[in-house]
Formats: sequence, structure tokens, C-alpha cells
Amino acid sequence: MSFTTQQIAELAGGELHGGGDVRIGGVHSLDAAGQGDLAFVTGGKMHAAAARSAAGALLTAELVDGYDGPQIVCGDPELSVAKLLEQVHELELPRPEGVSEAASISPGARLGRGVSVGACAVIEEGAVLGDEVTVYPLSYVGRGSRLGARTIIHAHVTVYAGVQVGEDCILHSGCVVGADGFRYIQREGRSVKLAHVAGVRIGSGVEIGANACVDRGMVEDTVIGDGVKIDNHCNVAHNCSVGDHTIMAGYARLAGSVRVGQGVMMGADARVVDHMDIGDGVKMAAGTTVLKNAEPGAVLLGTPAYPAREGMRILAMQSRLPDMHRKLVALQKEVEEIKARLAEALAERGGGA
Amino acid sequence: MSFTTQQIAELAGGELHGGGDVRIGGVHSLDAAGQGDLAFVTGGKMHAAAARSAAGALLTAELVDGYDGPQIVCGDPELSVAKLLEQVHELELPRPEGVSEAASISPGARLGRGVSVGACAVIEEGAVLGDEVTVYPLSYVGRGSRLGARTIIHAHVTVYAGVQVGEDCILHSGCVVGADGFRYIQREGRSVKLAHVAGVRIGSGVEIGANACVDRGMVEDTVIGDGVKIDNHCNVAHNCSVGDHTIMAGYARLAGSVRVGQGVMMGADARVVDHMDIGDGVKMAAGTTVLKNAEPGAVLLGTPAYPAREGMRILAMQSRLPDMHRKLVALQKEVEEIKARLAEALAERGGGA
Amino acid sequence: MSFTTQQIAELAGGELHGGGDVRIGGVHSLDAAGQGDLAFVTGGKMHAAAARSAAGALLTAELVDGYDGPQIVCGDPELSVAKLLEQVHELELPRPEGVSEAASISPGARLGRGVSVGACAVIEEGAVLGDEVTVYPLSYVGRGSRLGARTIIHAHVTVYAGVQVGEDCILHSGCVVGADGFRYIQREGRSVKLAHVAGVRIGSGVEIGANACVDRGMVEDTVIGDGVKIDNHCNVAHNCSVGDHTIMAGYARLAGSVRVGQGVMMGADARVVDHMDIGDGVKMAAGTTVLKNAEPGAVLLGTPAYPAREGMRILAMQSRLPDMHRKLVALQKEVEEIKARLAEALAERGGGA
Repeated sequence: MSFTTQQIAELAGGELHGGGDVRIGGVHSLDAAGQGDLAFVTGGKMHAAAARSAAGALLTAELVDGYDGPQIVCGDPELSVAKLLEQVHELELPRPEGVSEAASISPGARLGRGVSVGACAVIEEGAVLGDEVTVYPLSYVGRGSRLGARTIIHAHVTVYAGVQVGEDCILHSGCVVGADGFRYIQREGRSVKLAHVAGVRIGSGVEIGANACVDRGMVEDTVIGDGVKIDNHCNVAHNCSVGDHTIMAGYARLAGSVRVGQGVMMGADARVVDHMDIGDGVKMAAGTTVLKNAEPGAVLLGTPAYPAREGMRILAMQSRLPDMHRKLVALQKEVEEIKARLAEALAERGGGA
Repeated sequence: MSFTTQQIAELAGGELHGGGDVRIGGVHSLDAAGQGDLAFVTGGKMHAAAARSAAGALLTAELVDGYDGPQIVCGDPELSVAKLLEQVHELELPRPEGVSEAASISPGARLGRGVSVGACAVIEEGAVLGDEVTVYPLSYVGRGSRLGARTIIHAHVTVYAGVQVGEDCILHSGCVVGADGFRYIQREGRSVKLAHVAGVRIGSGVEIGANACVDRGMVEDTVIGDGVKIDNHCNVAHNCSVGDHTIMAGYARLAGSVRVGQGVMMGADARVVDHMDIGDGVKMAAGTTVLKNAEPGAVLLGTPAYPAREGMRILAMQSRLPDMHRKLVALQKEVEEIKARLAEALAERGGGA
Repeated sequence: MSFTTQQIAELAGGELHGGGDVRIGGVHSLDAAGQGDLAFVTGGKMHAAAARSAAGALLTAELVDGYDGPQIVCGDPELSVAKLLEQVHELELPRPEGVSEAASISPGARLGRGVSVGACAVIEEGAVLGDEVTVYPLSYVGRGSRLGARTIIHAHVTVYAGVQVGEDCILHSGCVVGADGFRYIQREGRSVKLAHVAGVRIGSGVEIGANACVDRGMVEDTVIGDGVKIDNHCNVAHNCSVGDHTIMAGYARLAGSVRVGQGVMMGADARVVDHMDIGDGVKMAAGTTVLKNAEPGAVLLGTPAYPAREGMRILAMQSRLPDMHRKLVALQKEVEEIKARLAEALAERGGGA
């Protein structure tokens, strides 16, 4: 990226105070930003650091005293950075345009207006691509699956048959939506497969990370709500339902038939065993293993999961285990000594009586 | 799915008692099933719940007293559900047919009867596809690799060169079979790669989940036995050998050169360090980390793994750590007080003597 | 592989003592090697085992007394095995040659001398492939990305736009380089995406395992140094910088903006939370969770990470928790008894006074 402060003020919809011709090539924190960088100030507490910053320009909600360079004042500096980066992204990493001749599109597929399909992408019979959908090269949309308007499918995405994806979604490379759930019944030492005849329904505004998986349901669809964000390497097993605006960080995983509420935050590596019910707004720290239902708003930590405060105490205590063991052994010895002295004392007294 | 009870009785090979024209659209548990659903009853203990169930029809081994709707009686209701779902699957998610003109098939590859190859699939020189093999679009079969009869390769599967896959296998999207094992020797701070010149041999009836990996061997093949089921995101490293009918749940992983026996059950996230020997029928709970050889039939839990009963005790005890610490500190104080009183008593006595 | 001892001596650049016509089909450890196998001896301590070995031939730094078969003497037997395997690899798993007509190469892409591109690979506008680069079928190189000389991209690799890869790298199937980092700001219960406008820079001699991910930076490139080796299923999040010759074993992961020094060893499943600074030469045991900065040379273990010796003590102590609890309860009882006896004794004495 390379913009003048004037351009940034326009892109961010802010008011420029100071020079409009300072060139900006990046966005950084107040500490890390240098001459060619923009830094943002999200509250009054940051004004002292902002005044000292070497940043080439500031994006701030209120003018910072003592800072020499140009300042762009806007209502929500962090949100303005998001908008700014989005616009930079559209300039520098534009989506492919048009339908490649090297794509394989079934005659029975339906494409909306302004759809882009890259080389060697395969769109099967009965698939429906909404307006302005972008399918990067080498991606696969299975029979009868639907992609809502403006959804972007990066290279090497697999959408099996029978999958519905909403509008404005982003699916990253290597993610797999609609593979069979993992369920067998055991007969005579062998595993008999339970076929998965339902699909996956994904809401709008969903992002799915690279190499993440969302399995199809057995007889009921696996469901991902609106605005859900799923990071790389995550897994949503068959028959799960994930509420709107829930966030799953890297490698977070849900076993089969888990019901997750709205606005849940799963830290990296957090996991939930099968058939659990996770209330709205639950927060799981990284690495948490949830073995029970969780009440709305619960904050959980540890393996197995405890309420965060208790989980922190348990974790902290673990490091004191060797010390506790030493103290325990010392106490055992002292008690033995006391017993000996007491017995001796009593014996003497008895003897003296 | 949508069937009448009459059709389901025929598909499941069971005997219909009651109306044959009730429409069924799903399969659910006795509690969850509603009017349009089939529920199954796997034993006498479930009869009371079955009698109360709102299910539209029952699949049961014995007639349930007090249930009003149609019942389909068969020897093994759960197995009948599996068969029923399989048939629904074939009706609703049929495999692609024929060889696409947009596939890239080397003239030196050999295809059996009834093989299907999708658009943009690539089959290299010397590859052999058995009768009725299905290769979905965008999959890759490397040089000289073989797929046994009726094996299904979903979209975006990678089979490197030198890989043998048996009959009736299912490989899900994004799985990678035959990438190099991860082994280097260290020389002057650098890693020198050890090339992997052996391959992978996979038995029959194996299923490999989405984005799972099975690495090739260094000088001996990595081997996966018959009927092995591997879930999404799992990893089998170089030179491992996995016995028949073993099950690896999501993210389960084997480091290099592990020998796993037959009928082993690895829970989600279970892992085994390199060069271990895991006996037949070993069970690992989810998240178990196995650092030692495991005797046949062992049931393991924890990190590091302990026999399940001991592992459960250790896990349960961890939550009592803060309480143990409080008690320990209280005891220390009491012992100090006792010592003081005892010393005082002895001193008095000494003084009194 | 199948060579005579004479051929192996030549391939390994060693001196043959004994018969040159013994046929060798594999490389194994001294214990496991049989008649048709080569075994290697890396030091004097192994000579006794070597003398007893059933191996068909030995690769050794010094002649082994008491071993009957042919011996190949060379300066660094382990390194010679590496060279030998590399040559076997080139004979048995040769790279594809030439540019396939079924590849999709943008007219604006630049290809060096001796480049190979397989069927259905897609090379976008402005991409640059150095001399002797190999792109296997079905791989994707995004707009403006560069692959250095001799780099090998296996099937189904995704290189997004704006990614630089050095020379002599190997990228395995399913790995994804350059997907968006996972970062949002929360506004009114919704996640607002921060676009990632920077890229990824990868050094030379880097290997990236199957289904691993390296995310692009937000405004600064994610950087992977020279000689870094990354195993299957690993994840390097946005804005990380990984020093030269660092090793990440299977599923090792770095959260956002982590700075990793040179020559760091991350065991399988080791993880580092965001924004940490990991010094040169740090070693993390498998499963370690690093929540703090780590000094150069630190050896870490556990969740959370402790210096290895302390971490081992804590881990060992966990198995003694049930025993500690029993001892604690017994001590509580004993102290109660002592108190009772002491009170009684003092009372008697008081009464006796």
C-alpha cells in the first residue's frame, strides 16, 4: 500500500489536521510505527504514547496534543483502519473477473450476474452461484450446492453436493465443507458406516479458514449461523449447530451433534465433546476441553474445563506441586518427631508417676 | 429422504406391523423424533421410551407395547438403519458416471470396467484404477499408484506416486496420502533431508477423513490395514503400521514408526510418540498422550497416559489441588503450634523437675 | 531400491571392504536389518551391536571387528545414507518434465529454463517461476507470486497472490501459503474483518508439510527464514517471523505476530501464543504451550511451559497426586490425634498440679 495522508483521510472518512502529502505505506502500533506508517489511537489512555510516537501520521478519535505530524480524526479509528485496509485490499488484490474457458461448468449449473469462475474450477450439475460470486481456480462446487451473492471461494476449496452457503462468505483454500461425518456401528469387530444423507447450511457473512472442515449431517443438516468466523484447521463435526457471530480460533473443534449458542468465543485449540449444549456468549480459553453443557455467559478454562477463576487457580497450583510435595514430606517427618517426643514425654510422666 | 413405511420395511428387510403409507423424512432418537421421523429401538430397556415416543414409525427388534404407529420389526434395527441410510445415499447422492473429457489421464494409466473420472482429475503414468473406481473432479493419482475396485476418491484428494489403495475405500477431500515423512539429520546447524523412497500400502474397506495425512515410508512402506477408519485432520507419520479395523477419531496422530495393533480405538486428539508398540484392542481416551508401549487391551487416559482408572483419579485430583494446598498450609500452621505447645510443656516440666 | 554393495560404495563415496556384489534393498537399524539390508554405524559404542547384526552390509566410519559381511567406510555414515537415499529417490521418483498442455498458464506469467508444470496447474498473471522449478498437477500459484529456482510444488498446493518462495524449497500437497490472517474487531456483537494486504516471504531450502498453513501478514509480510522445516498440519499465523533453520514438528503452531529466533526446535503440538518473542535455539518439548517470551537457548516443557527440568518434575508429580492426597488426609487425622493427646496430657498435668 502507498497513500498520501489526504487519500487516507478520504478513504477513512476522517478529518485531516496537518499535511496531506505525507506518504504512508503501512499501519502499525504506536510503538512500532515509523516515518512511513500510520498508527491508530483508540482512547485517551494512549495519548501520551501517541505524542511520543515516531509514526508518520495518526488516526485518532480526538486530536493528540504534542504530536507533530498529520492527524486524521474520525469517530472510530479502529473501524476506520478496517475500512482502509479493505479498500487497499480491493486495489492491490483484486478478484479475478469473468468465467475462464478452462473452467468446467455443468450445463445444468446456474450462474448469476457478474460471477467469476477461475481456470480448472469445477461447478457440478444443479449448482447455483449467486450474483457476483467469485470462484477461484481449482475449486469444486458439488451437485446442487448453492453459493449466495458475493461469496468468495478461494483456490482448492471443496464444497460437496448438498451444501448451502449464504451471502458475503469467504472460504479459504483447502477448507472442506460437506465431507461425511465420522460415525460407525460396531458389528463383529468391524465398523459399519452410517451414510450421511443430509447436508450443510451456512449463513451469511461467514469466513472459513484454510484447511478447516465442516462435515455434513447424517439425517439433519449441520448448521453454521450468520457471521460465524472459523480459523484455519478447525473442525465442525456432523449435526452440529453453531449460533450467529460465534468465533472459533485455530484448531478449535466441535465433536458431533454439539449445539453452540450465539456469540460464543472458542480460543485456539478449544474443544467440545459430542452432544453438548453451549449457551450464548460462552467464552473458552485456548486449549479448553469442554466435557459438559455450559450455561450462557460461562467463562471456561482448562482440561477438563472449569470456570475461569477456578481453572486459573488449578493451573497455577500445578506449578507448586513439587513444592507441595516437599512440604508434605517435611510435615510427615515433623509429625513423626512430635509423636515420638509426645510418647516419650507421656512415658516419662507415666514412669515418673 | 422421503419414503413410506412400506418402502422402509422393504429397504430394511423388516416386517411391517401397521400402516404402510406413513411418510418418513428422517431418522432420529426416540426423544427427538417427531411425526415424520423414524426412530429405532435397540433393546428391551428402550420400550418404555418407545411407547411414549412421538416418532412416526419405529424400527425395532421386538414389537413395542403401547406404541400406536407402524412398527418395522427386524433382527438388528441399528444395522437396518445403516443399510437404509446407505440406500438413501445412493438415491440422493449418486456417484458421477463415466470419464470426463476434461480429465487428464496419462496414456500409460490403466482403467478397469465402469470407472468414473471427473473433470480436471489427473491420473498419471502407470496408475491403475480397478473396476468401478470413482475419482471425483480435481483429484490426483500419482505415477504407478493403484486404487482397488469400487474405491471412491472425493474431490481434491492427493495420492502421491507409489501408493497402493485397496478395494472399497473412501478417501475424503483434502486428504494427502504419500507425502514425505519428516526426518532430517542435523549437520552444522542445518537440516539434511532424508529422502523417502518407499510408499504407502492401504488395505480394503478403509476410510480416510478430510484433510488427514498418511506419509510415505523412508525405506519401508507405511501400512494401513483393512477396515481402518481415520477421521478428519488425523496424521499417520512415516513407517507406521496400523492394524486391521483400528479407529482414529479427529486429529488423532501417530508419530514415526509406531506399530498399532488390530481393533485399536484412538479417541479424538489421542497421540502416540515415535517407535512405540500399541497392542491389539488398546483404547485411548480423547486427548491421551502415549509415551510408552501399550499392552494389548490396555485402556489409557491422560497426558502422559495412565491406565484409565488411575488416569481418572489423577484428573479428578487436579481439581482438588487448590483445596489440598489450603489444607497443607493449615496443617503446617497447626504442626508449628503443636511444636510450640509441646516445647512449652516439656520446658515447664523440665523447669518443674 | 536395489543396489549392489559396489554401487552403494560409489553412490555414498565410501571405501568398500568385502564383497561388492551383495544386493541391498533397504536401510535399517542394526537390530532390524536383515540379509538384504544396509545398516549404519555412527560411533564406536555401536560396534558391539554391529558385530552381531544380521545386516547384509554396514556403512560405518571405522571398520567393525567381528562383522563378516561387506563394510563401506566413509567419514559420515548417516550423511552418506542421506545422500544415498536422495539418489535412489531421483532414480525411482523422478520429477515430471516439461510444461503440460493441460496447464493454465497466464500469458503474463514468466517461466525460467527447465521449468515443469503439470496438468491442470494454474499459474496466474505476473507469477514468476525460477529455473528448474517443478509445479505438480493441480497446484495454484497466485498473481505476482514468485518461486525460486529448483523449488518443488507438489499437487494441490495453494500459493495465494503476493507470496515469495525462495530457492530449493519443497511444498507438500494441501499446504496453503498466503490465506488471510484471522483478525477481527468486534462492533455491536459482530466481527469486522481486518483485510490482510501484505504477503508471505519464504527463504530458501524451506520444506512445508502436507496440509500446513502459513497465513499472509496484515500490513507486514509473514516471514519464514532459510532452511526452516515445517511438518504436516502446522500453522504459522499472520505477521509471524520464523528464524533460519528452525524446525516445527507436526501440528506445531504459532499464533499471530510471534517472533521465533534461529535454530528453534518445536516438538509436535508445541504452540506459542500471540506476540511472543522466542530466542535463538529455544527447544520446546512436544505439547508445550508457551505463554511468555523465551530466552535464547531455553528448553521448555509443559502447559504452561516451564524450564524442562521443572516441567518434568511437575509432570512426574501429577501422577503422585492421588498418593499425596491420601498422605495429606492421613496427616490431618494424625495431627488431630496428637492435639487430642497433647490437650489431654496438659489437662492431666494441669489437673495434677
